[in-house]
Amino acid sequence: MAIKTRIEADFLGEKEIDNNAYYGVQSLRALENFPITGYRLNTDLIRALAMVKKAAALGNYANGVLEEDKKDAIVQASEEIIAGKMHEDFIVDPIQGGAGTSTNMNANEVIANRALEIMGRDKGDYDFISPNNHVNMSQSTNDAFPTSLHVALLIHAESLLETMNTMRQAFEAKAAEFDHVIKMGRTHMQDAVPIRLGQEFSAYAKVLSRDIRRVSNSLENLYEINIGATAVGTGLNADQKYIDTVVEELSKISGYKLKSAENLVDGTQNTDAYTEISSALKICMINMSKVANDFRLMASGPKAGLYEINLPARQPGSSIMPGKVNPVMAEVLNQIAFQVIGNDNTISLASEAGQFELNVMEPVLAFNLIQSIDIMNNGFKVFTERCIAGITANEEQMKSYVENSIGVITALVPHIGYKKASAIAVEAIQTGQPVRQLCSKHEVLTEEQLDHVLNAFEMTNIGVSKLPE
Amino acid sequence: MAIKTRIEADFLGEKEIDNNAYYGVQSLRALENFPITGYRLNTDLIRALAMVKKAAALGNYANGVLEEDKKDAIVQASEEIIAGKMHEDFIVDPIQGGAGTSTNMNANEVIANRALEIMGRDKGDYDFISPNNHVNMSQSTNDAFPTSLHVALLIHAESLLETMNTMRQAFEAKAAEFDHVIKMGRTHMQDAVPIRLGQEFSAYAKVLSRDIRRVSNSLENLYEINIGATAVGTGLNADQKYIDTVVEELSKISGYKLKSAENLVDGTQNTDAYTEISSALKICMINMSKVANDFRLMASGPKAGLYEINLPARQPGSSIMPGKVNPVMAEVLNQIAFQVIGNDNTISLASEAGQFELNVMEPVLAFNLIQSIDIMNNGFKVFTERCIAGITANEEQMKSYVENSIGVITALVPHIGYKKASAIAVEAIQTGQPVRQLCSKHEVLTEEQLDHVLNAFEMTNIGVSKLPE
Amino acid sequence: MAIKTRIEADFLGEKEIDNNAYYGVQSLRALENFPITGYRLNTDLIRALAMVKKAAALGNYANGVLEEDKKDAIVQASEEIIAGKMHEDFIVDPIQGGAGTSTNMNANEVIANRALEIMGRDKGDYDFISPNNHVNMSQSTNDAFPTSLHVALLIHAESLLETMNTMRQAFEAKAAEFDHVIKMGRTHMQDAVPIRLGQEFSAYAKVLSRDIRRVSNSLENLYEINIGATAVGTGLNADQKYIDTVVEELSKISGYKLKSAENLVDGTQNTDAYTEISSALKICMINMSKVANDFRLMASGPKAGLYEINLPARQPGSSIMPGKVNPVMAEVLNQIAFQVIGNDNTISLASEAGQFELNVMEPVLAFNLIQSIDIMNNGFKVFTERCIAGITANEEQMKSYVENSIGVITALVPHIGYKKASAIAVEAIQTGQPVRQLCSKHEVLTEEQLDHVLNAFEMTNIGVSKLPE
Amino acid sequence: MAIKTRIEADFLGEKEIDNNAYYGVQSLRALENFPITGYRLNTDLIRALAMVKKAAALGNYANGVLEEDKKDAIVQASEEIIAGKMHEDFIVDPIQGGAGTSTNMNANEVIANRALEIMGRDKGDYDFISPNNHVNMSQSTNDAFPTSLHVALLIHAESLLETMNTMRQAFEAKAAEFDHVIKMGRTHMQDAVPIRLGQEFSAYAKVLSRDIRRVSNSLENLYEINIGATAVGTGLNADQKYIDTVVEELSKISGYKLKSAENLVDGTQNTDAYTEISSALKICMINMSKVANDFRLMASGPKAGLYEINLPARQPGSSIMPGKVNPVMAEVLNQIAFQVIGNDNTISLASEAGQFELNVMEPVLAFNLIQSIDIMNNGFKVFTERCIAGITANEEQMKSYVENSIGVITALVPHIGYKKASAIAVEAIQTGQPVRQLCSKHEVLTEEQLDHVLNAFEMTNIGVSKLPE
Repeated sequence: MAIKTRIEADFLGEKEIDNNAYYGVQSLRALENFPITGYRLNTDLIRALAMVKKAAALGNYANGVLEEDKKDAIVQASEEIIAGKMHEDFIVDPIQGGAGTSTNMNANEVIANRALEIMGRDKGDYDFISPNNHVNMSQSTNDAFPTSLHVALLIHAESLLETMNTMRQAFEAKAAEFDHVIKMGRTHMQDAVPIRLGQEFSAYAKVLSRDIRRVSNSLENLYEINIGATAVGTGLNADQKYIDTVVEELSKISGYKLKSAENLVDGTQNTDAYTEISSALKICMINMSKVANDFRLMASGPKAGLYEINLPARQPGSSIMPGKVNPVMAEVLNQIAFQVIGNDNTISLASEAGQFELNVMEPVLAFNLIQSIDIMNNGFKVFTERCIAGITANEEQMKSYVENSIGVITALVPHIGYKKASAIAVEAIQTGQPVRQLCSKHEVLTEEQLDHVLNAFEMTNIGVSKLPE
Repeated sequence: MAIKTRIEADFLGEKEIDNNAYYGVQSLRALENFPITGYRLNTDLIRALAMVKKAAALGNYANGVLEEDKKDAIVQASEEIIAGKMHEDFIVDPIQGGAGTSTNMNANEVIANRALEIMGRDKGDYDFISPNNHVNMSQSTNDAFPTSLHVALLIHAESLLETMNTMRQAFEAKAAEFDHVIKMGRTHMQDAVPIRLGQEFSAYAKVLSRDIRRVSNSLENLYEINIGATAVGTGLNADQKYIDTVVEELSKISGYKLKSAENLVDGTQNTDAYTEISSALKICMINMSKVANDFRLMASGPKAGLYEINLPARQPGSSIMPGKVNPVMAEVLNQIAFQVIGNDNTISLASEAGQFELNVMEPVLAFNLIQSIDIMNNGFKVFTERCIAGITANEEQMKSYVENSIGVITALVPHIGYKKASAIAVEAIQTGQPVRQLCSKHEVLTEEQLDHVLNAFEMTNIGVSKLPE
Repeated sequence: MAIKTRIEADFLGEKEIDNNAYYGVQSLRALENFPITGYRLNTDLIRALAMVKKAAALGNYANGVLEEDKKDAIVQASEEIIAGKMHEDFIVDPIQGGAGTSTNMNANEVIANRALEIMGRDKGDYDFISPNNHVNMSQSTNDAFPTSLHVALLIHAESLLETMNTMRQAFEAKAAEFDHVIKMGRTHMQDAVPIRLGQEFSAYAKVLSRDIRRVSNSLENLYEINIGATAVGTGLNADQKYIDTVVEELSKISGYKLKSAENLVDGTQNTDAYTEISSALKICMINMSKVANDFRLMASGPKAGLYEINLPARQPGSSIMPGKVNPVMAEVLNQIAFQVIGNDNTISLASEAGQFELNVMEPVLAFNLIQSIDIMNNGFKVFTERCIAGITANEEQMKSYVENSIGVITALVPHIGYKKASAIAVEAIQTGQPVRQLCSKHEVLTEEQLDHVLNAFEMTNIGVSKLPE
Repeated sequence: MAIKTRIEADFLGEKEIDNNAYYGVQSLRALENFPITGYRLNTDLIRALAMVKKAAALGNYANGVLEEDKKDAIVQASEEIIAGKMHEDFIVDPIQGGAGTSTNMNANEVIANRALEIMGRDKGDYDFISPNNHVNMSQSTNDAFPTSLHVALLIHAESLLETMNTMRQAFEAKAAEFDHVIKMGRTHMQDAVPIRLGQEFSAYAKVLSRDIRRVSNSLENLYEINIGATAVGTGLNADQKYIDTVVEELSKISGYKLKSAENLVDGTQNTDAYTEISSALKICMINMSKVANDFRLMASGPKAGLYEINLPARQPGSSIMPGKVNPVMAEVLNQIAFQVIGNDNTISLASEAGQFELNVMEPVLAFNLIQSIDIMNNGFKVFTERCIAGITANEEQMKSYVENSIGVITALVPHIGYKKASAIAVEAIQTGQPVRQLCSKHEVLTEEQLDHVLNAFEMTNIGVSKLPE
């Protein structure tokens, strides 16, 4: 049975379209022009586009330039998309030429055709409801797309921040649990002086709390939207009343308190709102990659490694080596870091390539930024649940490292000086004799004083040990 | 109706699995551990894994350690995957912890279960055919996965190289077509001296021909595979006869003349084979991004830009500005460049993170490298067909730029000196009078000599103009 | 005449040192170990090190562990370095192994020897004043170096922020000067709709003002210093009273209101304070590189380019082409951007490489971060004075672009619809007839209405033109 | 006493110059315009510029357009610079606007003034010998600068390749020395199966040998020079005879067999010759950074780390912890890697920013590329001499890791299957009993067979252990 089709036209000519499809001629052209990644548009971006289109229809209606029944149909169609319908009709590739025009027109066409259907008209009857004249009324891709992206990112980032907060709490819980566990501090991968395992986790929690603040602060610019800027930021064809209404309605629809950008020309051509977020994400992943590395080092072994902590076993680690369990959750966190750092590079390049009134590279920028947030959110969730939460400490192993270490001699420096302490340290390394034994042998302090000064747990707190008389 | 399930177990415990599924317990664990990108494994990588498993079965059979009927079943199952079947059973995320163990085990499990089915056994009857003992026999993820990746990349890159060659030809065709078209050369975005449009395209073809050579050369390392290295490169549990057979069979199956890596320890821990390819891809995209930029500049306008060439119109360029057509095919090429450059950053980070006998970051590395090849291949195809091939030249516009330019005075320098020529140039700029007119006025040369020396077309060839007597 | 030398020793053995030198054995070892870049340490970093040493001496004295006369000598020696003396004795390479130990010891040795000299002792008489026991008392490289770096960066960044502010004012002055100048807005390098040149500059000022805020905010973490953390952040060998005094004194000496890091373990191992600044710098340069690109495009020509603005001529632009002047100040700004972006990559890599209690890669991190601030500061100064301030507008040229453009038809869309407007646009492109003329011909509106709607200057303000009756 | 000065002029006006200076008005303008980094031009680049100027003078003389006495004076002046004189007169900053025009003019001016002096004329007497007309005769910055850069890079890279070769030999020597030393192989930082320390070093040597080949191959494009291309690659004002002579003479002077670029337009606008080298350098440093990381891990301890090898002590490792020695030579290698990777990013950005006939970003590109080669050369030298050569092995420690490990059970898999082996592995982990003991207890094989199969040294060679009957 033949597929029923309709003919649509734009100023470049006609195309035949499956009549079941809500998308139209321009979406189809974009599909053919940009078969690049094969990925779909992000769902939250599709929903955000529909939110903007709904708000714009309300704005145009309020401004007296859109009829009520058409407004109602456009609003209903948009709401259906917000609710998750017709997403399969968003057919354009996330990487596309044209600064998002194809994505915007895909939304305009789907909404126009669904609105026509709602009003009992045929799809493609654009003289009645046109993707450009009605759905896109008072808009340009250059304001509608960035505004949608702002909203989509706010939705995305909100979820990420919740996940980060849960992760921070997991670090803090472990910090408390391990606060009594003494271990050897290491600098340069060399034995330094004692520290507590809880202090380590407390540092992880602390840096993540700064990351939460950084990511949160980086979202600030997103609340300023450039809707009404139209093509180049001057606001041609967009009345102030319309703009005010759209900002207000979109705030309601999205749940975010949005406001109009102070300088719409700036808001249309500059993309630092995005690079700022990407930088915050990158910094977070640099920090978390360091944590993953620490985990992998502390969990190394079991026999030929440090074996200080145990990461929960999540899957057999080898197709050939029986019983092997690998730190896979930490490894995937490293990889997410590498991806996010690479994405930041792509985003930087895209941002730098803006020219005059517009940055046409926004599609690749949006794709990478959304992906970064997604994989961090996904990765942090499993890392928290499947890794951090299940960590256990090999306290005996850690204690024995401290007891055998030479670095504890540092506590003697204020009492016997760096030079004498160095001589003992060198002797300890060369002879293998414990530091404590050598101190006794050389009678550097009394035994009672040594007991006091060489107490490893005390060394993990601020201060110079006071010698008992 | 309840789904029929089976129970599978590994040394971490049991899991319930939909009995329609060919994948097994370890794939399922990986699915749960790594819900990161939501993307599927690349099809060529899945096929290459099956090629390796088939070759390994033949190698183990030849080495006398795998029974004939099991070998046959494994081979048949693998061939079905090569032919495109059961790809939906490859459920693991491309970004995953564990250096590819999950991907490798996913292949092992699908093949084992399909082989069991072929032999009339129940899925999950691993005592009969085991993913580890039989399908993965004599292998480790650490040799099977990189070997598969080598093959997958060879397949991928071959297609890319064909596309690049077609693109080069398109540039060359335009170089010939435009060889007579004079235009103003520009350096620093400032008028310099005349050049021919054909020379521009010839330079594009030339740099791309170097890129073809570079990408082609960068594949060389892929022909060396580390199969037989097993876990750490020492070849434990892999007989030499097995290795030789696998290399030979895999060469036949894949169509590429493979050989065993000279140093298997090196071949297992170092990932420069991948970074070398990624670098070649990056350099190519840097070069092509410059071409895309030139296109967008030359096609700028039509009224307030250079308007030297016309890129074929591919879609309406604006949702608000009627008649606007944008250079979307060039823009998407830029974006592909940014993505590939960012991917190279991710790949570099992953490569640097190797430790001791293995680089556990290979999954993210593979994901990005395959993606880079894919989007370049896809992008170059449409850029060639939908952009380069349809370019036309606005010859009159270009000619008028040359005629009005000041830079042509450079041709006079050998005859009148830099200082005098500068004085005329400055006068031309300040007064707006044409260079030729000022030369006549100042009688720097005879009219006949000026005709000769100031011939723009002649200026596009090597040499100092000789003055007629 | 033979150079007079002295012998110094550390636990690795003895070295002979020019007795004029204030540096000692460990500086000399570092000089030999790290002949990497050949550059000198940054002056502000040297000064900041001396500030920290002075404050530490005051802290140790207050805490009763350093004698008054030695304190006085160390303070005087430090003050001399702060005043610019003995910088030639800082001989270590900025890129060095050891997390800054060599830089810290270089400071300790210079100060110790100068203090000995002040007290009438021989250089090298470390039993009296020791680099480790006295100058470095209660400190580790791991707190003294980062604390110094924080102070050095605060000094550096303060100067940069002043420069950025001056640059912003220069943009704003031009925005006012050019507010009346109409020009063609461009998106995708294609003619869009009119805008005013002043609006362009206003957008440049606006994005830079966000950059100022971003850079300023990114410094916040610098005010938290980890002095007292000693080796691993636990504060071993550093009394709280000492810490409090150092923080207070260093605030006085430096002029910045510093405070002790909340979590010293975190403050010692994490380097996000630096990546955060580097990201802010990178974003700024991405934005300013876009401005430089706009400048170069607008100033392109003079005959075969846009020729919309004139950048002040700063030097002959060509060794061969007379009269050529290039946009060199914009070009160097682009290059500074590329350097800063590359530096951010290096900084990211260094930051990710921290392990356990310390990031040993801080030297390369510090080197790049200081360089980024320096070259931005230097570059912005000359860009402001030698480029922005002298820009002039070619008003007639810009006006003629607008008058000949097709994009102005956009203003008609609200009145005649996108479809009809497109038809006229296409006709204008194909026939070369002006839009206005075609509108009249097709009688789309009355002449009076067309006068009103097609007023280019009006198009640069928000709103839909209202039709006169 | 007042400094004696002279007045020089260019078409922008006059400037007063210290008459001792060989540089002239354009160098001075550049100095004022670009106070960016404060660094000096690289010495090899200055020398290469002089080589090109000498060759050009010979070419122009051969072509009959430069008088013999002026040619002789220019040649002599150039040779003096090649010999290292007057380098202090090269005053321009390495990061500068203008595609190298300032650097080229600096060379032209120094040579012109020195040539004038040689001929008994006053400096500045440019009517007699002009920087532009005579020294720069038949050249443009756009061919003279890249040609010089090619030669400078060849000189630089030759030295680097020698250093890399010495480093490879050092790895190989250690591979031989440690060939008998058994150690635990690690994957995922988890115990895997045995390997020999010599095999590790052999892998390091092997990857470095590929790096040598890669860097060497990447230089190939440098042998093609674009001299004669002049301003835009068309060769305007450069006769073929002149070009042929210059190529021949420059080959003689530099000692490199140069040839003219096939396509001079391509050779002038594309910069892939540089990105290709930078990529090869980057890949090398990624590989060597991994080696540095392995070193730091193996040398970790001495008590709370792996303690498998000892890196030679090069300096006291801590200002506070007595006796501590850090792996500083490995750490500086990591930092060099980070710098080179960051530089590659800068170079990529600069390369992508080419437009039309020229890439004006070459100065920053040249600066970074030369720096990368320099710091690698410097760093590899000290790393080879001061680190690799002095490494010693802690054989007992490594042996004990192997003996206590569980991974050796892998050798049993071909004989008892993965499942049974896993059960023993799990029991070994849970009970702490040695694998061998559990094998005996469970009687999986005879004692004789176990002796044979569990021989760790044998496990480091290819093959499945054959069971004795």
